[in-house]
Amino acid sequence: MGRWEPNAPGRLTVAALDLYVERGYEQTTVAEIAARAGVTERTFFRHFTDKREVLFDGSSGLIELLVDGTASAPTDASPLEAVQVALEVAAERFFEQRADFARKRQRVLAANPPLAERELMKLTTFAAAISGALRDRGVPAAAAQMAAEAGMVALRVAFSRWAEGEEEHLTPLLREAFADLRAALAP
Amino acid sequence: MGRWEPNAPGRLTVAALDLYVERGYEQTTVAEIAARAGVTERTFFRHFTDKREVLFDGSSGLIELLVDGTASAPTDASPLEAVQVALEVAAERFFEQRADFARKRQRVLAANPPLAERELMKLTTFAAAISGALRDRGVPAAAAQMAAEAGMVALRVAFSRWAEGEEEHLTPLLREAFADLRAALAP
Repeated sequence: MGRWEPNAPGRLTVAALDLYVERGYEQTTVAEIAARAGVTERTFFRHFTDKREVLFDGSSGLIELLVDGTASAPTDASPLEAVQVALEVAAERFFEQRADFARKRQRVLAANPPLAERELMKLTTFAAAISGALRDRGVPAAAAQMAAEAGMVALRVAFSRWAEGEEEHLTPLLREAFADLRAALAP
Repeated sequence: MGRWEPNAPGRLTVAALDLYVERGYEQTTVAEIAARAGVTERTFFRHFTDKREVLFDGSSGLIELLVDGTASAPTDASPLEAVQVALEVAAERFFEQRADFARKRQRVLAANPPLAERELMKLTTFAAAISGALRDRGVPAAAAQMAAEAGMVALRVAFSRWAEGEEEHLTPLLREAFADLRAALAP
């Protein structure tokens, strides 16, 4: 194999996810991922620290989308509406652009409690970023945190329905989850 | 040391928490916990699988309180109001009864990301239990899940303020968090 390995991170990611789904996350080794991607183990470690990082890499772009999305909501949007705008932006420009990866990833997380626990923590970092963007819109800190965290609940619900694969698009499921959230919280 | 060890689990729990706070969770060994509690390591392992279980033991009683608390809410309470009733019951009859433990535990979790991740997962099991109790009240499944999960957000916020130690009681902080939640989610 030559040293020129076009899109090694992309191929490694696809190979890893396929193996995690086929054989289970715990049972898959880095050697197997590299072999499936047609690269060396050394190449794997040039791009990822370990096999878990393949699943949790690349959220900085997503955080930027969420922050910009929150800022882009109409001035008169409520805090929760602004969060919904941000998540719909992320659904269209991020998650739906990598639907196959996102769905497989969700299945792997659902089958591995420590990974699912890690994911919940990742969502709290998204919530913190959105909360900051809400404060920049003048929302008081407590309300900003609550709206952002509540949005993560809607995202989790929509995402797990989407990962089950009945619906092609995430956005309608997200709207449904926000509607359920509002209905649940109405006095 | 004799074989009669009154309240070994309680003494082990106090010893473990004190050591986790003093020396750090990672740095503390089971041998040290047992020594501080004045029991053998073997006694530790009769009551706990490992040092992490000291922090995550005993939630079945809490789940029962949450389920009963949800059921005890007035018939005309909204789903979120029923969740708030359940959490206020848990605050008074569970958390405030072991305030010292709960506060130390919170500090240990805050300093150890994998424990904090585990805790988030534990909250989702509480949410699932409350959600079931809401469905028994006739709340549709989606609304039940959303109200229960939103309640966990309020609990997390109130709890971390309480653990910082300014307020003696958890209940007023919980009421404040629910008020913030409602304000954030109002249209």
